Amino acid sequence: MAHIATSRRKVEWGDCDPADIVFYPNYFRWFDAAAHNLFSSAGLDWADIFTRFGVIGLPLVDAGARFVTPSTYGDELIIESQVSQFHSKVLVLTHQIINGGKLAVEGTEKRVWAGRHPEDEKRLQALPIPGEIRDLLS
Amino acid sequence: MAHIATSRRKVEWGDCDPADIVFYPNYFRWFDAAAHNLFSSAGLDWADIFTRFGVIGLPLVDAGARFVTPSTYGDELIIESQVSQFHSKVLVLTHQIINGGKLAVEGTEKRVWAGRHPEDEKRLQALPIPGEIRDLLS
Amino acid sequence: MAHIATSRRKVEWGDCDPADIVFYPNYFRWFDAAAHNLFSSAGLDWADIFTRFGVIGLPLVDAGARFVTPSTYGDELIIESQVSQFHSKVLVLTHQIINGGKLAVEGTEKRVWAGRHPEDEKRLQALPIPGEIRDLLS
Amino acid sequence: MAHIATSRRKVEWGDCDPADIVFYPNYFRWFDAAAHNLFSSAGLDWADIFTRFGVIGLPLVDAGARFVTPSTYGDELIIESQVSQFHSKVLVLTHQIINGGKLAVEGTEKRVWAGRHPEDEKRLQALPIPGEIRDLLS
Repeated sequence: MAHIATSRRKVEWGDCDPADIVFYPNYFRWFDAAAHNLFSSAGLDWADIFTRFGVIGLPLVDAGARFVTPSTYGDELIIESQVSQFHSKVLVLTHQIINGGKLAVEGTEKRVWAGRHPEDEKRLQALPIPGEIRDLLS
Repeated sequence: MAHIATSRRKVEWGDCDPADIVFYPNYFRWFDAAAHNLFSSAGLDWADIFTRFGVIGLPLVDAGARFVTPSTYGDELIIESQVSQFHSKVLVLTHQIINGGKLAVEGTEKRVWAGRHPEDEKRLQALPIPGEIRDLLS
Repeated sequence: MAHIATSRRKVEWGDCDPADIVFYPNYFRWFDAAAHNLFSSAGLDWADIFTRFGVIGLPLVDAGARFVTPSTYGDELIIESQVSQFHSKVLVLTHQIINGGKLAVEGTEKRVWAGRHPEDEKRLQALPIPGEIRDLLS
Repeated sequence: MAHIATSRRKVEWGDCDPADIVFYPNYFRWFDAAAHNLFSSAGLDWADIFTRFGVIGLPLVDAGARFVTPSTYGDELIIESQVSQFHSKVLVLTHQIINGGKLAVEGTEKRVWAGRHPEDEKRLQALPIPGEIRDLLS
């Protein structure tokens, strides 16, 4: 049902550690890029969103990953991303990394729809996710 | 009760993104380094462990983080790491990142004590964690 | 005349620093990936080369970049790579990063064709570059 | 004669590639951090400089490194940094990475003292380096 975005990525030499497998923090780097790709594939440009809706980002409150099988240099990965849950001010993204037809890593990112706090511009304030955003990502 | 290791880290310019806060995958990079530091602070050298106990790494099965407050360029972070749970072949590490006396990020890493599979050296096999390792990290 | 390989890369959020431009070490990360791509585009698989020719890598002796204009989040970069000089045991790669039709960064990597030292396997020894490699990359 | 700043850094697991040595772009990441450290060790806070002198950064026009010997996981590196040349609007930083008492990498960064262009705030304009800055870094 949900809008699903697909990213592709080839594992590079510098993504791997001395054990010859992807150094795991890189998966979160790829999740972040896949989240941006998910938005832009729905016609929502990241920078544009900020201007139009008065938000200044989608900061993370939570991120996690389950590592099923390691990937290594040269592997061609497919990352399928979607919004798996909408809460009032929070959205949960799910990313599945597929390697050779099999699930290799599954990740989640819980992000807040956030603008500047009206009384303290250094702080963020969670805001209700606009219906238009929900519709485009559902 | 548990052996706790403390790492220190100053947030660098290149750790931060255009929102002027730490790009979140870097926290996992720091958790990994803090895990190594936890082992070495208990007298367990990472490379040495591999040779002595016939393991070839402590691959992750799961990692997660809860982001409480963002950190920014120049912040001095303290990372407190410990093994919070021992299972038979798995250990769970907890990392708390403290910024200015307050909890900024809390992370967990679930790692497997793993050697080469006897029949297929490309695969890993979970092994029981030796008592000596448990004792040193408890 | 030379064999030229083209790589494409979209600048990601996490590639940029608080000044909203690519954090410069990332360009070298991209040069390294482009070097691998140059070899594979000539039919030379990196891992395969090592096995066939008894080398264990193409370690760098020198790398440099000239930064002409900054690139920022979302920019679509084209990287054109070639071997610009062959010496007996050393090759010089040139990478040009094009952004919006204009040269943004120009980089060079000087790499050694290297095998293990016959008397000390921890050391490397520069070896003559095989004619076949020269031919494929010229 | 010059003011020299010393940074220390232990090579982490995630800094190394499948060849078991530091993935070379990381050296440039360390040069950048060492440049910041050089300024702050001279009493010049990076963010503070920008406000006080109307500059918005010290963007690089050129960076290079010569790799003498590889470093590997666990190595303790010392990085000695200084301004090796002052031009009217440009300064050249030199970084020497010492591993086990020996020079491992030598790097240079050519940086511009830059403010916003008066007619186009998206462009940068090189500005004369203030005498105070010269004095503190000499």
